[in-house]
Amino acid sequence: MASASKTLASCIFCKIVKGEIPSFKLVETETAYSFLDINPLSKGHSLVIPKYHTEKMHELPDEELADILRVAKQIAIATGAENYNILQNNGRIAHQEVDHVHFHVIPKPSATDAEGLVIGWPQQKVGMDALAKLHEEIKGKL
Amino acid sequence: MASASKTLASCIFCKIVKGEIPSFKLVETETAYSFLDINPLSKGHSLVIPKYHTEKMHELPDEELADILRVAKQIAIATGAENYNILQNNGRIAHQEVDHVHFHVIPKPSATDAEGLVIGWPQQKVGMDALAKLHEEIKGKL
Ligand SMILES: [Zn+2]
Ligand SMILES: [Zn+2]
Repeated sequence: MASASKTLASCIFCKIVKGEIPSFKLVETETAYSFLDINPLSKGHSLVIPKYHTEKMHELPDEELADILRVAKQIAIATGAENYNILQNNGRIAHQEVDHVHFHVIPKPSATDAEGLVIGWPQQKVGMDALAKLHEEIKGKL
Repeated sequence: MASASKTLASCIFCKIVKGEIPSFKLVETETAYSFLDINPLSKGHSLVIPKYHTEKMHELPDEELADILRVAKQIAIATGAENYNILQNNGRIAHQEVDHVHFHVIPKPSATDAEGLVIGWPQQKVGMDALAKLHEEIKGKL
């Protein structure tokens, strides 16, 4: 099925997809495009993006999401990374810096904080009762 | 198409899929299962997993990846999160703690490091020549 095109003229990633800005292209499918991140956190750090322009992941039509992870998988295998993170950020406070959905494939070559994604994990204390209540709330909106 | 089942008897996530361990289940499809993380980083922190057991993302057959992001999208919408991260970790040094592929959907309610995913970004200095060489290397393995 053909992808409904939706692009934003001023968007740097839309320009990369259209070839108006050069990129180190990796895999391309009908709906997805991937390329090396030119400001990498580690060797092989790549981006997989839907061609369809939206700012956040939940705004994408389902069919525009279908190729993303299999492309990420191809790239992960090609980089030879044994350890790696897949990361997709939505919103400035969640570390999104370009407002076109993008999935990072980030090899983690060593355990140090000097390269690859660095993760902080501020685990909350939440009781089972609160989780059960939240569960009902979220289920009501699914 | 039916999903080829592959489970590991000792795996906590395989047990959750089979109902041998209870979970706060959200969306379930033929190949994917999702539930609230009981050690959340923020309100609504959820996990989306393939039912098929593998340790790392790149080991999954493509068809087992197909539902993951649309389920993550459904959950992101149901939580009402404006800002959030999608994260999938492969390998202990990349912060993987359960050895069954899982995708985190982590709302980021505020800009503080007190809740939600905390991200460190050790950007490397890499010249265009080195990137061009790496590009050829990776393309040769795709
Ligand atoms: Zn765009
Ligand atoms: Zn398992």
